[in-house]
Amino acid sequence: MRSVTRIGSAESAPSVTTPIADAPKPPLSTPPQEPMGRIPVQDVRPLVDQGRRPAKSVVGETFQVSATVFREGHDAVNATVVLTAPDGAEHRIPMECINPGLNHWVAEVTAHTTGQWTYRVEGWSDPYGTWVHDASIKVAAGVDVELMLTEGSLLLERAADHPRRSSDGRLLLDEAAGAMADRSRPDQVRLQEGLSRAVQDEMAARPLREMVSPTPDYPLLVERERALYGAWYEIFPRSEGCYYDQTTQQWMSGTFETAAKRLPAIAAMGFDVVYLTPIHPIGRAARKGPNNTLTAGPHDPGSPYAIGSPDGGHDAIHPDLGTFDDFDAFVAEAERHGLEVAMDIALQASPDHPWVQTHPEFFTTRADGTIAYAENPPKKYQDIYPLNFDNAPAQAYAEVRRVIQVWIDHGVKIFRVDNPHTKPVEFWQWLIQDVAKDHPDVIWLAEAFTKPAMMHTLGKVGFQQSYTYYTWRNARWELEEYCTELAGAAAAYMRPSFWPTTHDILTPYMQFGGLAAWKVRAALAATLVPTYGIYAGYELMEHVARPGAEEQIDNEKYQFKDRRWADYEHGGPREGQSLAGYLTRLNQIRSAHPALRWLRNLRFHSVDDDNIICFSKARRLPDGGEDIVIVVANLDPHSTRASMVRLNMPLLGLDWGDSFIAHDEITGAEWTWWEHNYVRLGPDGEPVHVIAVRKH
Amino acid sequence: MRSVTRIGSAESAPSVTTPIADAPKPPLSTPPQEPMGRIPVQDVRPLVDQGRRPAKSVVGETFQVSATVFREGHDAVNATVVLTAPDGAEHRIPMECINPGLNHWVAEVTAHTTGQWTYRVEGWSDPYGTWVHDASIKVAAGVDVELMLTEGSLLLERAADHPRRSSDGRLLLDEAAGAMADRSRPDQVRLQEGLSRAVQDEMAARPLREMVSPTPDYPLLVERERALYGAWYEIFPRSEGCYYDQTTQQWMSGTFETAAKRLPAIAAMGFDVVYLTPIHPIGRAARKGPNNTLTAGPHDPGSPYAIGSPDGGHDAIHPDLGTFDDFDAFVAEAERHGLEVAMDIALQASPDHPWVQTHPEFFTTRADGTIAYAENPPKKYQDIYPLNFDNAPAQAYAEVRRVIQVWIDHGVKIFRVDNPHTKPVEFWQWLIQDVAKDHPDVIWLAEAFTKPAMMHTLGKVGFQQSYTYYTWRNARWELEEYCTELAGAAAAYMRPSFWPTTHDILTPYMQFGGLAAWKVRAALAATLVPTYGIYAGYELMEHVARPGAEEQIDNEKYQFKDRRWADYEHGGPREGQSLAGYLTRLNQIRSAHPALRWLRNLRFHSVDDDNIICFSKARRLPDGGEDIVIVVANLDPHSTRASMVRLNMPLLGLDWGDSFIAHDEITGAEWTWWEHNYVRLGPDGEPVHVIAVRKH
Repeated sequence: MRSVTRIGSAESAPSVTTPIADAPKPPLSTPPQEPMGRIPVQDVRPLVDQGRRPAKSVVGETFQVSATVFREGHDAVNATVVLTAPDGAEHRIPMECINPGLNHWVAEVTAHTTGQWTYRVEGWSDPYGTWVHDASIKVAAGVDVELMLTEGSLLLERAADHPRRSSDGRLLLDEAAGAMADRSRPDQVRLQEGLSRAVQDEMAARPLREMVSPTPDYPLLVERERALYGAWYEIFPRSEGCYYDQTTQQWMSGTFETAAKRLPAIAAMGFDVVYLTPIHPIGRAARKGPNNTLTAGPHDPGSPYAIGSPDGGHDAIHPDLGTFDDFDAFVAEAERHGLEVAMDIALQASPDHPWVQTHPEFFTTRADGTIAYAENPPKKYQDIYPLNFDNAPAQAYAEVRRVIQVWIDHGVKIFRVDNPHTKPVEFWQWLIQDVAKDHPDVIWLAEAFTKPAMMHTLGKVGFQQSYTYYTWRNARWELEEYCTELAGAAAAYMRPSFWPTTHDILTPYMQFGGLAAWKVRAALAATLVPTYGIYAGYELMEHVARPGAEEQIDNEKYQFKDRRWADYEHGGPREGQSLAGYLTRLNQIRSAHPALRWLRNLRFHSVDDDNIICFSKARRLPDGGEDIVIVVANLDPHSTRASMVRLNMPLLGLDWGDSFIAHDEITGAEWTWWEHNYVRLGPDGEPVHVIAVRKH
Repeated sequence: MRSVTRIGSAESAPSVTTPIADAPKPPLSTPPQEPMGRIPVQDVRPLVDQGRRPAKSVVGETFQVSATVFREGHDAVNATVVLTAPDGAEHRIPMECINPGLNHWVAEVTAHTTGQWTYRVEGWSDPYGTWVHDASIKVAAGVDVELMLTEGSLLLERAADHPRRSSDGRLLLDEAAGAMADRSRPDQVRLQEGLSRAVQDEMAARPLREMVSPTPDYPLLVERERALYGAWYEIFPRSEGCYYDQTTQQWMSGTFETAAKRLPAIAAMGFDVVYLTPIHPIGRAARKGPNNTLTAGPHDPGSPYAIGSPDGGHDAIHPDLGTFDDFDAFVAEAERHGLEVAMDIALQASPDHPWVQTHPEFFTTRADGTIAYAENPPKKYQDIYPLNFDNAPAQAYAEVRRVIQVWIDHGVKIFRVDNPHTKPVEFWQWLIQDVAKDHPDVIWLAEAFTKPAMMHTLGKVGFQQSYTYYTWRNARWELEEYCTELAGAAAAYMRPSFWPTTHDILTPYMQFGGLAAWKVRAALAATLVPTYGIYAGYELMEHVARPGAEEQIDNEKYQFKDRRWADYEHGGPREGQSLAGYLTRLNQIRSAHPALRWLRNLRFHSVDDDNIICFSKARRLPDGGEDIVIVVANLDPHSTRASMVRLNMPLLGLDWGDSFIAHDEITGAEWTWWEHNYVRLGPDGEPVHVIAVRKH
């Protein structure tokens, strides 16, 4: 029954002073309770759903593992994190006790390959640590001097035999052991032989570990970096290249071929992912007209979210956009520009969807024999039939899986899922895991604008990324509270994607905030979290809402939208009236600063003015250097504000009295900064500093 | 792989509107992750060490089980707690959603027998709830009226077939179903048939449950009430009846026979447990003299914590105290007075302990061949050898187990463990569970005045009760913060015992606070938590400390103490100079108020003056009534203070505008109280109100 106490026989042998617990204990019978282990290890974090679901990380991302580790009495205890790679190789990371009163131990760990890792914490008895503590005090006090030196000598002799010890290390410890045993030397000199920096370093690197008490191995899913980091750009492909034909008095749809012409500009702005709203055939039945009206004209294109027509369903392409060959060419062109294509998955059907005929069991049939529309009683959405996954789950799951494979086979590795919170959570769990079997690099983004429980749980069951409440968090306290949650405990299973606007959401802040608002919200999204996205037209600050709604007037969902990009380019009539340059600079800053690729390194600082927010991110680099970025933003888009910023200097790797060169990556300005700094930000200049810290 | 979704086939059949998920899903292969279940249930509380160790309760104690339960889309979700008794009988307790935004569900549950219970939460789809919501809105709006009434009728028909439905219930639902289908009636009348109070009650009592999704069964250990509730009185048995013999100029020890004469007085004060410091033979080697001096005189009795002499060890009785027969008689006499005997277990040895000869492997041998003394470097405690449980754990465990059985066989069912935090946690886990196999009514109290991690973990591995930091928590904010922790999450595994003083601890508050301090600290201990204890002499306010120490001068650990109890009785020279009457009243109040027998019902109220604390406890009684107690105490022992108390009326089961009769159980005074009340408390009168709430 003592199975959780693994004795590290290869590493430790019985100690003279504290023999290890290798003898069997009488067996426990009833009542059954999991044995605690010789050295208790409690409250391991991160732990997702009690360790029943994996904690998440991406390749190269550093995160903290913490635990409460303690023991009886006064002897020294120590702890190690063991990361086990998918190939079974174990990596040991020493833990450090950062709060002795609470027995709180931490380690920063990093996994360097994708796959199914595990982690555990091992608590262990540290006989050398015990000896260092006791001998230092007792020899100084003249108590048990000879005995302490003898025990130290025996301990180092024993440690010299460690199987991973180098011959140099063995020599070092053997010599120290001999010197400690040499009664011809002064006591303090003998003691120092056992306490030398060289001996302590060798003992830290290859410690004598006794009573090794491991927790269970908890799952850790390590995914590719794009699961955490990326800049997204959303387009309606039919709008890119659409035009109004004066001859026919009709709109002509953009195609994959014309949309591909927009890719170089998106790539030039520095985006990593181009996200396409649904590209499937659109139903005619109950088609919506402009501005969500119930009666579409004969030439209104309809919402791409009303999926399915006689031309096909989720596995088909809208004929206006082109063919699968055209799609393949679009994906290839995107790839040529360093862009990944993200596809929208909206699992719902227009009444014209082929499934209505071929798979009526995928829908809910009412008592009167009709198929149930989407409803929010008493409202009905008659252009949409929701899918029912409970009537025939095996068939429905398999059909969706088949559809997903169609797009994977055409090069799609990122899926943005529309309204996942209206389908069973266990369905997503199944689907994402089933896809991951063969395609572990596929990434799913959950568009669940709903209650926290659902959003968190979708992350836990597999979604790599989640839309968030960012769009509605404008005040400093809101942003600090929410981002602290996201970058804290939630970061183990939910990765945020920040969007200042979407094609469905245009908040009053964006409607009325002017240029400063559009800059601030993009800059915050791009720097608070590693993944952010914008919806096409953000560059143009399209801020006019449909009256009474918090979405754009003439919503692109229901009509074509020709943005006349050329007008904003060099020589065009609207040259300079675009945020493209600002967005490009933000993405350049993101690329230049590895610290901005991480989430869990977000830390907030104090500012006197409640309208100004300040945060930093720091990241240790492989070359030993450190990348540190400080962002200061005035959240009030209507007023320029001046205030003092107080930096928590140790969070920047600095002492309280240090100064550094603050280089504003937006403007190129440079100042000397200290703990307390004056800032002046707002609409009459730049509303945001993004500061690179350059230490003297 | 969908094993966690249990389909309640006996209770539910496929619904017309939302068929249940009874068809198999395609199997999941890698990566392995525990299926979420059709209705996600997250964050179940209480959960001790991820459910790996039992949550705790006592017979008849009500506690809250909570969970986050939600589902996709808009259909109604519901939840149930299932308590499974040791005999396998299942008890279902409906949960209530008290925070829809956070999907937070709670239920108050109670187990009525001791033993190994389990609990789980079942989330489920509630088709009747869905229908009530949708039909109410849609029929009122004139949308789908006939369809909604038809579906309601079909639903109730199906519900009528519930296997646990009574014939009356079946008739009720069948009639309602028929009436709803009757097109000759007005729509609103038909709708009301499906929404009537009778139908809703019947459906709540025996609901249609679909997609039933249970969590694992988590362990729940239900123990006897004394594990949670009791008033303890500590004595050194040798002091009770000791006397200084003027003839021999020596102290004569009290005996079990003389100590038994003190039992009626202890019982008369209303205590439940008499706790004896160790009763074993005391070593001579390095025996401590009065006031912890290193040199004992020939007649100094020594510390009873230096256990073991040629007269025997932990399984023996000090010859001065008597024989096993005398001990048995003492236990019997205690029982006759309604007192349980708690015995001190101090697992350490004097150098004279028989184990030193018979079981040298129970101790640590140093490199020089000597046995290790207790140490806190550079200090040594040469009268004590600590036990080493790692050299020969099987033998050491078995020997301690044998010793415990000796005392169980002599009627002891409560053990107060001295310094458990100096022995391996896994040893206690083994010992407590091994004893519980045959003696589940044995109670262990941990005297671990140490860091929080160890204290909490000792509770988790089996200790029924724990000494706490109460002794050092005097300010209101300290008491509120600490008691909120103890009565909150920690209450699932750690039960506090509050002691204003012990034979080792006399804080400055008690040294210098005078009568008010001794009243306040006893009253708070007796009412904040269900178990409290005092050390003999508390009645006499023995407040003089050894200079430079926070313990009593002339500590009873090292010498005899004749308290001359008779002096304080009627006609004695010190009549009235005792707190015995006050303590008696406190224990009477505890007996009269079942609310004070619980821990988790503690709630704090607001008081303007930071020196005054106010809290309440409420408990629903089996007869349907409610017992409510409010305590208001002035924590400043030096000043009488007046202040306004603001009661959180709903916590008392009252509306904000209500008044009630406040009966002070200490003085018998009565007032009419409301939300805001004036109090005046302190050393010039009574420092504490203990108020019984009598509703109009």
